[in-house]
Amino acid sequence: MTNIAFIGLGIMGSPMAVHLQNAGHAVKGFDRSPAQAQPLVDAGGRAVTSIADAVRGADVIAVMVPDSPHVQEVLAGEKGVFETAEPGALIIDFSSIRPDVTQELAKQAAERGFRLLDAPVSGGEPGAVNATLSIMVGGAAEDFATAKPLFDTVGKTIVHVGTNGAGQTVKAANQLIVATNIQAVAEAVVFLEAYGVELGPALDVLGGGLAGSAVLNQKRDKMINREFAPGFRIDLHHKDMGIFTTAAREAGLVTPAGSLIAQLVASARANGDGHLDHSALLRGVERLSGSLDKEN
Amino acid sequence: MTNIAFIGLGIMGSPMAVHLQNAGHAVKGFDRSPAQAQPLVDAGGRAVTSIADAVRGADVIAVMVPDSPHVQEVLAGEKGVFETAEPGALIIDFSSIRPDVTQELAKQAAERGFRLLDAPVSGGEPGAVNATLSIMVGGAAEDFATAKPLFDTVGKTIVHVGTNGAGQTVKAANQLIVATNIQAVAEAVVFLEAYGVELGPALDVLGGGLAGSAVLNQKRDKMINREFAPGFRIDLHHKDMGIFTTAAREAGLVTPAGSLIAQLVASARANGDGHLDHSALLRGVERLSGSLDKEN
Amino acid sequence: MTNIAFIGLGIMGSPMAVHLQNAGHAVKGFDRSPAQAQPLVDAGGRAVTSIADAVRGADVIAVMVPDSPHVQEVLAGEKGVFETAEPGALIIDFSSIRPDVTQELAKQAAERGFRLLDAPVSGGEPGAVNATLSIMVGGAAEDFATAKPLFDTVGKTIVHVGTNGAGQTVKAANQLIVATNIQAVAEAVVFLEAYGVELGPALDVLGGGLAGSAVLNQKRDKMINREFAPGFRIDLHHKDMGIFTTAAREAGLVTPAGSLIAQLVASARANGDGHLDHSALLRGVERLSGSLDKEN
Amino acid sequence: MTNIAFIGLGIMGSPMAVHLQNAGHAVKGFDRSPAQAQPLVDAGGRAVTSIADAVRGADVIAVMVPDSPHVQEVLAGEKGVFETAEPGALIIDFSSIRPDVTQELAKQAAERGFRLLDAPVSGGEPGAVNATLSIMVGGAAEDFATAKPLFDTVGKTIVHVGTNGAGQTVKAANQLIVATNIQAVAEAVVFLEAYGVELGPALDVLGGGLAGSAVLNQKRDKMINREFAPGFRIDLHHKDMGIFTTAAREAGLVTPAGSLIAQLVASARANGDGHLDHSALLRGVERLSGSLDKEN
Repeated sequence: MTNIAFIGLGIMGSPMAVHLQNAGHAVKGFDRSPAQAQPLVDAGGRAVTSIADAVRGADVIAVMVPDSPHVQEVLAGEKGVFETAEPGALIIDFSSIRPDVTQELAKQAAERGFRLLDAPVSGGEPGAVNATLSIMVGGAAEDFATAKPLFDTVGKTIVHVGTNGAGQTVKAANQLIVATNIQAVAEAVVFLEAYGVELGPALDVLGGGLAGSAVLNQKRDKMINREFAPGFRIDLHHKDMGIFTTAAREAGLVTPAGSLIAQLVASARANGDGHLDHSALLRGVERLSGSLDKEN
Repeated sequence: MTNIAFIGLGIMGSPMAVHLQNAGHAVKGFDRSPAQAQPLVDAGGRAVTSIADAVRGADVIAVMVPDSPHVQEVLAGEKGVFETAEPGALIIDFSSIRPDVTQELAKQAAERGFRLLDAPVSGGEPGAVNATLSIMVGGAAEDFATAKPLFDTVGKTIVHVGTNGAGQTVKAANQLIVATNIQAVAEAVVFLEAYGVELGPALDVLGGGLAGSAVLNQKRDKMINREFAPGFRIDLHHKDMGIFTTAAREAGLVTPAGSLIAQLVASARANGDGHLDHSALLRGVERLSGSLDKEN
Repeated sequence: MTNIAFIGLGIMGSPMAVHLQNAGHAVKGFDRSPAQAQPLVDAGGRAVTSIADAVRGADVIAVMVPDSPHVQEVLAGEKGVFETAEPGALIIDFSSIRPDVTQELAKQAAERGFRLLDAPVSGGEPGAVNATLSIMVGGAAEDFATAKPLFDTVGKTIVHVGTNGAGQTVKAANQLIVATNIQAVAEAVVFLEAYGVELGPALDVLGGGLAGSAVLNQKRDKMINREFAPGFRIDLHHKDMGIFTTAAREAGLVTPAGSLIAQLVASARANGDGHLDHSALLRGVERLSGSLDKEN
Repeated sequence: MTNIAFIGLGIMGSPMAVHLQNAGHAVKGFDRSPAQAQPLVDAGGRAVTSIADAVRGADVIAVMVPDSPHVQEVLAGEKGVFETAEPGALIIDFSSIRPDVTQELAKQAAERGFRLLDAPVSGGEPGAVNATLSIMVGGAAEDFATAKPLFDTVGKTIVHVGTNGAGQTVKAANQLIVATNIQAVAEAVVFLEAYGVELGPALDVLGGGLAGSAVLNQKRDKMINREFAPGFRIDLHHKDMGIFTTAAREAGLVTPAGSLIAQLVASARANGDGHLDHSALLRGVERLSGSLDKEN
């Protein structure tokens, strides 16, 4: 049994906190919107009203918030984790943020006697609900070993990929591949439809060969039916592509596909599709091709 | 037992012909390079020295050659199939060629009393050797039904996707997705290496989530080790991207990823990598990023 | 005084024919729409009702039609120039078409005893009206010398750039530069507006430095005012970008800007802007950025 | 006569300071490399060894340094302008930096009683030497009026484009157009050469029409001769494209040409061409096309 503070009980954080509580740990959850804590309370956990309350007595402090500034605020902000938690605690940041921010926060954490793992996840809401997340972990090996049982409670594929920041770097690569592959499948779908090919059988055979992918399996129905309820929102993928392109540029790399896809994701967002699932990149292909249903 | 003529006994055609012979059919094989027929002969088939010899008495005429002009020559050329085969024969074109060429040849075939299926495959040399090809078939439903047992002998995922040309259209979409996904994985690999992330664990975790794909599974070792023996050659993928981009333009579509990837494949070829596996798109990322090993 | 047949009296051809008539030549004009010949008739020229009538007795046969198939029809079609004109005549093709088509037609022309110059023009309707066209001429030096006085009558910058096809090749390069520069200026305009910079002074200072160009001078008001009456239509630029990208690919070149711009021109056309001036590429920037005035 | 401090006496700053001295002003110059001050001293100006010495008694403080951090250091750093200059002085920042940094520095300047103009220039070393720079000025109208006689001494096209930051925004747009047009001309040159067209006449005729530009005029010989001595270095253009793409993204804009060109400039730099003139983007076209002279 581990005393766990869980900060950020959104679409992802809430089911993860519930899984941890259900596994026999004592979870205190905090979210700026108190109603978000209800599932955790229903599972026997506690809802608290401040970070300070959450981290009091906690051995592990889990964080799952949207972006770099939120993590900075939660950890290094006024009355945040660094100010209020007990030295020695292990901070697990499940958020997807900039690798350099992670590294800076890990340094600050160490200076204050904390340990920190960056542990961004892939798999989306279904992965969180079904505890089948992929987790890419950066940090010290011994901290990874400590956290491993907790990771096993919320995920399925858990890999220690390097020192602090490496988790975020792998997550950025993950988002690059996912968005690029979505774009490819979207262009293929629009192409097949334009030539009158029946999509069902066509995607079946594509899925059975070298074109097969998790994206094709999981997103094909959304694309065929033009039903783009998230899932993983374009707004978040836009943030992630910014992380990738910035990090690639800083490393002196030239990544033409990443650069292009970042523009296409930005265009989806600029056209008001930010709240849709990232498979709605298909709408961008139609927008460029003049075939977007204006009523959609 | 079916009498089968098999024209084109290359890397793909040779094992396919052998599978058909091994399944109890009588296969006569023809290739411009007679030595290519040896595996078929070893399996009990016959090697012949002309198309006319191959198609004499054949109920099914299988064709597996590199590009549109070769298929035109084999079918409509002097002493080709249309001139020498017996009316009523079913032509199965396994080659990957332009959809409009397929449609024109199917029309000519019908005028001469032949039936034709376009049946391009995906899965590469391993797929041909292991009889696990994906086959995307265009043509009449009754002809598909006739050919289905033969398809089952050489492939695993066999789908009738529409009328003549539809098979080629689906194949073009397949090649778009495959090349784009290779490019994405290649950029991810170069990115991860630049940040010092150990590739093995990183690709493991990527493969377990939404970034997972057949490309990632089958091409990761080639990329990690920079060993780009084909596999599927960039020269052929260059041909296929030309088919895709031309067909997309003719349909009035705008496909930015497809257009970009076609350029990157062309660049690989222009730099002398045409004989390498398409996973060598990774070399293009390194070339752009100034990190390509000049000795390679 | 030269006897001239002028075939194709559209926006470009009509004022060119008038200039030649006004310069003292005897011009017989033909257009499928007879009303197009009125300005030539008003200038003292003759309107005829067939190509055969036009070329009878003509020393020079000028052609100005939209695309490759039209030139093929006019020259090599039934009752076309090759069938009806008198051997020895000099054909000047002002149309912008595929270099390989020009070369094939030049070969056919030579076999029939004709001489041919490809002489595509740049400068648009104002250039034709004001006789200030740039003319890029491919063909034999002696034919260029013969035609030079006529070129001087309709243009200002007249250059012999090589053998047959070279004129078309230079024209393709011209269209690449023009479209790419329009796209750059369009992105700059949208960018400056987004940051609240007053466009007039900003474009003044841009025009005075290394960013200055004919495109910036001639297209800035259309962009500022969003008034995209042609000028040079996107439909035609789409045709020209197809010529460029096909020729670049056939030469084994990788031209990322050209490839991208071809997609953006295609997108403008797919969205119904084909009849607008090519400066309407600005609408594509707004479309991607979600700021396109839907009423426009 | 104005007392002027000039900080940054590099390729650009040195001739600008000399022009101001020659115009009858009293210029004190500072550069980290004292030898850089020699031309100013030769013209009758004074060389000083610290920012504090330079700004003592100065009514106008001119700054011309490479990038945002340098300007921040010069103005807001220890013993920098803000600490050592006399309130009321007018700061003219000729450097090309991020608009948001300019705005932040202008705010800090105002809080300390200084006035600030952002006044980035275009025209390169020849523009600085010949006093023909284009200057795009952001800031208060009265400050612009004060500085106008000094601008006239070093430039030719001088425009007040808006409030603080607007100068930098226009400069970013300038760099977008310049780099994109260079890329277009470079692709055209490689294309024309591939088709055997003689470049001299071809570029003459291109320059006479809508494809004509300052880039074509000023960079054609460098491209034809593959002599890429700067001029304006790719390293600096890389910095500028970063400013543009970041600002465009922050404004929610999608700028496909700008995004692509930023990648191509980054690729030139990654391949060791950062010290060459930006017209060396041509080498990138050749690199992609497999035709780059390996010895170059």
